[in-house]
Amino acid sequence: MNFFRKFALLLGYPLAGVLLLALVGLAVRYSQIQLSDPPLSQKHLENKQAYLQSIAPGSTAPPNILIIFFDDLGWGDLSSYGNQLIDTPHIDRVADEGVLMSNFYSASPVCTPSRAALLTGRFPPRTRTDTHVFFPDASMLGTMRRMVGWANELPREEITIAEVLRPAGYRTGMIGKWHLGDREGHRPNDFGFDDWYGVLFSNDMFPLDMYRNDGIVIKDERVGSFFSSERDEADPLPGQGIDQTTLTQMYTDQAIAFMAEQNERPFFLYLSHSFPHVPHYPSREHANSSRGGAYGDVVEDLDRSTGQLMAALERLGIADNTLVFITSDNGADYNGSPGMLRGRKGDVLEGGQRVPMIVRWPTHIPEGVISHEMAMNIDVFPTLLNLVGVNLPADRTIDGKDIAPMLSGQTESPHDYLYYFAATESLPAAIRDERFKLHGKSGDVGRNRSHLSLLHQDAENHEVGNLYPEAKQRLEQQLIDMQQAIEESPRGWK
Amino acid sequence: MNFFRKFALLLGYPLAGVLLLALVGLAVRYSQIQLSDPPLSQKHLENKQAYLQSIAPGSTAPPNILIIFFDDLGWGDLSSYGNQLIDTPHIDRVADEGVLMSNFYSASPVCTPSRAALLTGRFPPRTRTDTHVFFPDASMLGTMRRMVGWANELPREEITIAEVLRPAGYRTGMIGKWHLGDREGHRPNDFGFDDWYGVLFSNDMFPLDMYRNDGIVIKDERVGSFFSSERDEADPLPGQGIDQTTLTQMYTDQAIAFMAEQNERPFFLYLSHSFPHVPHYPSREHANSSRGGAYGDVVEDLDRSTGQLMAALERLGIADNTLVFITSDNGADYNGSPGMLRGRKGDVLEGGQRVPMIVRWPTHIPEGVISHEMAMNIDVFPTLLNLVGVNLPADRTIDGKDIAPMLSGQTESPHDYLYYFAATESLPAAIRDERFKLHGKSGDVGRNRSHLSLLHQDAENHEVGNLYPEAKQRLEQQLIDMQQAIEESPRGWK
Repeated sequence: MNFFRKFALLLGYPLAGVLLLALVGLAVRYSQIQLSDPPLSQKHLENKQAYLQSIAPGSTAPPNILIIFFDDLGWGDLSSYGNQLIDTPHIDRVADEGVLMSNFYSASPVCTPSRAALLTGRFPPRTRTDTHVFFPDASMLGTMRRMVGWANELPREEITIAEVLRPAGYRTGMIGKWHLGDREGHRPNDFGFDDWYGVLFSNDMFPLDMYRNDGIVIKDERVGSFFSSERDEADPLPGQGIDQTTLTQMYTDQAIAFMAEQNERPFFLYLSHSFPHVPHYPSREHANSSRGGAYGDVVEDLDRSTGQLMAALERLGIADNTLVFITSDNGADYNGSPGMLRGRKGDVLEGGQRVPMIVRWPTHIPEGVISHEMAMNIDVFPTLLNLVGVNLPADRTIDGKDIAPMLSGQTESPHDYLYYFAATESLPAAIRDERFKLHGKSGDVGRNRSHLSLLHQDAENHEVGNLYPEAKQRLEQQLIDMQQAIEESPRGWK
Repeated sequence: MNFFRKFALLLGYPLAGVLLLALVGLAVRYSQIQLSDPPLSQKHLENKQAYLQSIAPGSTAPPNILIIFFDDLGWGDLSSYGNQLIDTPHIDRVADEGVLMSNFYSASPVCTPSRAALLTGRFPPRTRTDTHVFFPDASMLGTMRRMVGWANELPREEITIAEVLRPAGYRTGMIGKWHLGDREGHRPNDFGFDDWYGVLFSNDMFPLDMYRNDGIVIKDERVGSFFSSERDEADPLPGQGIDQTTLTQMYTDQAIAFMAEQNERPFFLYLSHSFPHVPHYPSREHANSSRGGAYGDVVEDLDRSTGQLMAALERLGIADNTLVFITSDNGADYNGSPGMLRGRKGDVLEGGQRVPMIVRWPTHIPEGVISHEMAMNIDVFPTLLNLVGVNLPADRTIDGKDIAPMLSGQTESPHDYLYYFAATESLPAAIRDERFKLHGKSGDVGRNRSHLSLLHQDAENHEVGNLYPEAKQRLEQQLIDMQQAIEESPRGWK
């Protein structure tokens, strides 16, 4: 089939070229025209405002919450998840002191929809992030996205964890990469974060300016490229912008400063690292020290960062009362490790969406637990809301579920099924239950036939539908039902 | 002018498309026209004839030789290679009684070039099989291949194992799939096989006629499709051609009959199975019995076949004096298992080319050995020639090396380096030595940068060139040297 694919590519690229040229022509011609804002649901924006106004701090003192979110870290990239070359003793120690989850997923195999899912508890089509990743609004690709009617920012009517936790009594901070839109009204401070220090996009996109809230503190002086994307690893922009060799440490210092601030309110900190996304700039101090090469170096920088954060919690005397999550936005990119899983970033295969997840809260979660129960990053939103005693918003579907009882070992996963969303599709492409995974007909395996596999004995290789016809039929039906439900109400408004 | 230029481009590509369609139409219209024969080296054909005439039977009695060759069987598809769902006790037993090789490769990640390499000991460009797989000569794709100057059959001047072993005193037989050309003068009987029973192409291509030597014994009555390829698994062609549910057993019966023939000469039998290539037709008797689904069923059919063959050798009293090879033409296709390796059929990643290899010869090879030394299917030709005391042909490069001493545990691999050839490239895309693998800049990983990995600790994920700059430079240079050598003399004529 490779042969046919080559032929298709031979024809496909010229055709894509023509299309691109036509779009470029249009874009150049009308570059001054301000495109109208994306459709906004006024009703749900008002619902959101009313909902947020209804929230008040609870009576009991809730914990600090720290989410350490890596970019493109694969399921097999940590030594606690089996990596043979990369050493991550600090992260592994957090796992030893809490729960290591072996069946935790991002809601998407790419960046933007996964971040939206984490912060809102909702699947990609709900948040209009079902069209791959956002690009700088003024760039060619950003303009093209808007011209074809795709969202290029998180809609204002979406509700993030930060927006809920703030009226619930938290001070809210974000450090690092946003990637949920750059136009005014759609940046971190517009979605509930009191403080933000970081970048708007991935570290291979530009302009890669460093922001502190509304102000740019490090300006990217490079001239932009057509795709607003740059993967050259040779040049850490001396004097032209962010020195990426210092990026992880900058984030870490800012995070520690935020956590250390004297304040009677608990904190919610969303630390969204730029690495190990390409390009890889290891810290100068530890470059070439990992047995896993430059990729290992940036992961070990992240591990040292985590060690510093944990030490800071100890020093501040708040380690016992801080709920820590460590996870990733999607599976390994081309030079990360998916472990023994099939597929990578961009695939709805396990390697594209199954990611590390480590949760530590010494006073509430037993230590040394390895949980094989399934969960997804959409669960963080309802789990945290339940923790602080805030009801879920009533006007919209929250796809995630509270996994707190599961983390304490009291119950099984609250999910009967998990759904997998491909990077550019609005409807789920695959589904799993505790034992099986089913790729729909258009999925990553099976060549236009649906594909049932036994998740715990095989890496999505062998189709076993002939042996489990009832399971296959049940999962197919369940997938179709969810597809229909989302087709009827993509945003999940109630 | 820019405007007109754009317009021209807008028109130009569609026009090119129309032109292509017209060419395709012409090709369809004139598909009966015999295109001229591919370039033939008259000199090397004469060399070949002189070489073959110089071969005489040796003084000592050589062993029978049985090569069991599977189609698309992945490195992780046998229970002896770690599969958790598929049971292959008969093949595993052969491994227990001989050598199981963990670092054995096909010379290509696809079918045709791998088969040419096995039979000739030469890399794909030597045998003009560096352009993916052959198609039926009269089909659209076959015609197109020849129109663009690609070979669509093994050149007559190539020398196969069978052609050498016949004058060396062997009776030579082939059962199963050929896939090295279908035009007259390029079929199994033209390349040294006294007897042939089998099909010319993969079991998803048609017409899929069953041949016994020159005659068709089961005619495919289906109407051909544009691509001469059919993957529908629902219809085993009742009454229209080969019943593929019986294919493995047919081959097995024919193989046993060939081996059992009373004859003082030793035999060389090349049993080239059609499965587990798609489509999958398990035997009716054992359908739905494998825990690995339909794919597992066809692999377990192959395992039972192997058990029958081994039992026949015992029954015939020749098991001790028969050298058995069990291997595959390339890595796992989409629903086979590459085990813990990265990549699949079609990739120069390990999963595309590393394959099972089991060798048994009770009187000469120790039992229960697992060899981690590297070897490739190009080694079979020189190994067998050395075994029967025939010198290698002097007018051409034989890329393989004699691995007999290595199999007996006496030496390390005779290869300092192995080279990986992508399915449609003439020059090697990757190289390995005992410890490292290097993908060149255009390889399957690394995004246009070369990629060095530690083969025994990591599945080609992490690039470690920064830690081993000398190794990287050495392998890059070695790869470039080989690329240049092949560019200068693709066919390797001396």
